[in-house]
Amino acid sequence: MHLACLDMEGVLVPEIWINVAERTGIEELRRTTRDEPDYDKLMRYRIAVMAQHGVKLSLIQEVIASMGALPGAREFLDDLRRDFQVVVLSDTFYQFGMALMPHLGMPTLLCHDLEIVDDMIVGYRLRQADAKTQAVRAFQLLNFHCIATGDSYNDTGMLAQAHAGILFRPPQNVIDEFPQFPVATDYGQLRAEFDRAAR
Amino acid sequence: MHLACLDMEGVLVPEIWINVAERTGIEELRRTTRDEPDYDKLMRYRIAVMAQHGVKLSLIQEVIASMGALPGAREFLDDLRRDFQVVVLSDTFYQFGMALMPHLGMPTLLCHDLEIVDDMIVGYRLRQADAKTQAVRAFQLLNFHCIATGDSYNDTGMLAQAHAGILFRPPQNVIDEFPQFPVATDYGQLRAEFDRAAR
Repeated sequence: MHLACLDMEGVLVPEIWINVAERTGIEELRRTTRDEPDYDKLMRYRIAVMAQHGVKLSLIQEVIASMGALPGAREFLDDLRRDFQVVVLSDTFYQFGMALMPHLGMPTLLCHDLEIVDDMIVGYRLRQADAKTQAVRAFQLLNFHCIATGDSYNDTGMLAQAHAGILFRPPQNVIDEFPQFPVATDYGQLRAEFDRAAR
Repeated sequence: MHLACLDMEGVLVPEIWINVAERTGIEELRRTTRDEPDYDKLMRYRIAVMAQHGVKLSLIQEVIASMGALPGAREFLDDLRRDFQVVVLSDTFYQFGMALMPHLGMPTLLCHDLEIVDDMIVGYRLRQADAKTQAVRAFQLLNFHCIATGDSYNDTGMLAQAHAGILFRPPQNVIDEFPQFPVATDYGQLRAEFDRAAR
């Protein structure tokens, strides 16, 4: 009984914050965990920047909805869901991620929550620390054979915890540091890796 | 962060075995856990009956696919999935249940597996005992607030484990024995109970 655990940003949809920065023209929102490794500090910085520019949640949701899925992602997912149970494990927030789910056929999304007051983002609540890895652990307690894919550092815990982990279009440094995971660069290869891991 | 845990048969789709009995004309397949409370004995009986009548898996899958969802179930589910993450927790088998998922918009299904040899059902593998209750427990470990609905005895463990449990069109004896759970008899009421439990 195989469960496919998919990262969202970089695997199924574009990077949300980069698109929000581009489409709102607010350069400060380009800052990522590569620039500021302390996630809480980064999020508080983003929230302060949005407050300063008066950027409302509803505007960000419009931007996100207009991003759509990555080309080919919907077809990959539709096809995968015929043969695997699928859950999307993401460190995004429901208030962002749900704007993208209709583009993907409404798969189950396990992520985090923002705190909203009067359409402004005032804080965030992580569901739990290391949530992707914990989700894989929970599904393993239910006797599922988990096959996970993701593109970056914050996915490697889940990839290692799963019975099989696959990197999808990762940056070179992640490939170099985690040579144990096969790398797929298009959806055909990714599907082939899922099938191989399920055999 | 609310997770809706839905039983499948009786809540979203008709009872599978009853329909298979009707459409194949094999009366012995009408036998349920009400007639034979030992589930393993019942399943071995069903497998023997199908072997005796030469009923192949592919025939049963055709019957199941033609059943479709209960009237209104797809609309209820589409609407629910906009506001809740949804998983279907069922004691059916993937080889049966997956024939119904396209009628429901391909929600995530956690159930069991049949053992198949040459298109004949030769056995079954429960993913784990009390699988619905265990699934709710696992999601609670992930800090989800679970709201569960089901129609019969084998759902009451999951309903009790969840933060809120709702009976949907249950038989009178289940209503009488489990007065602690609210009862919904149509999808409008069921949605209202989900919203009440989420507040």
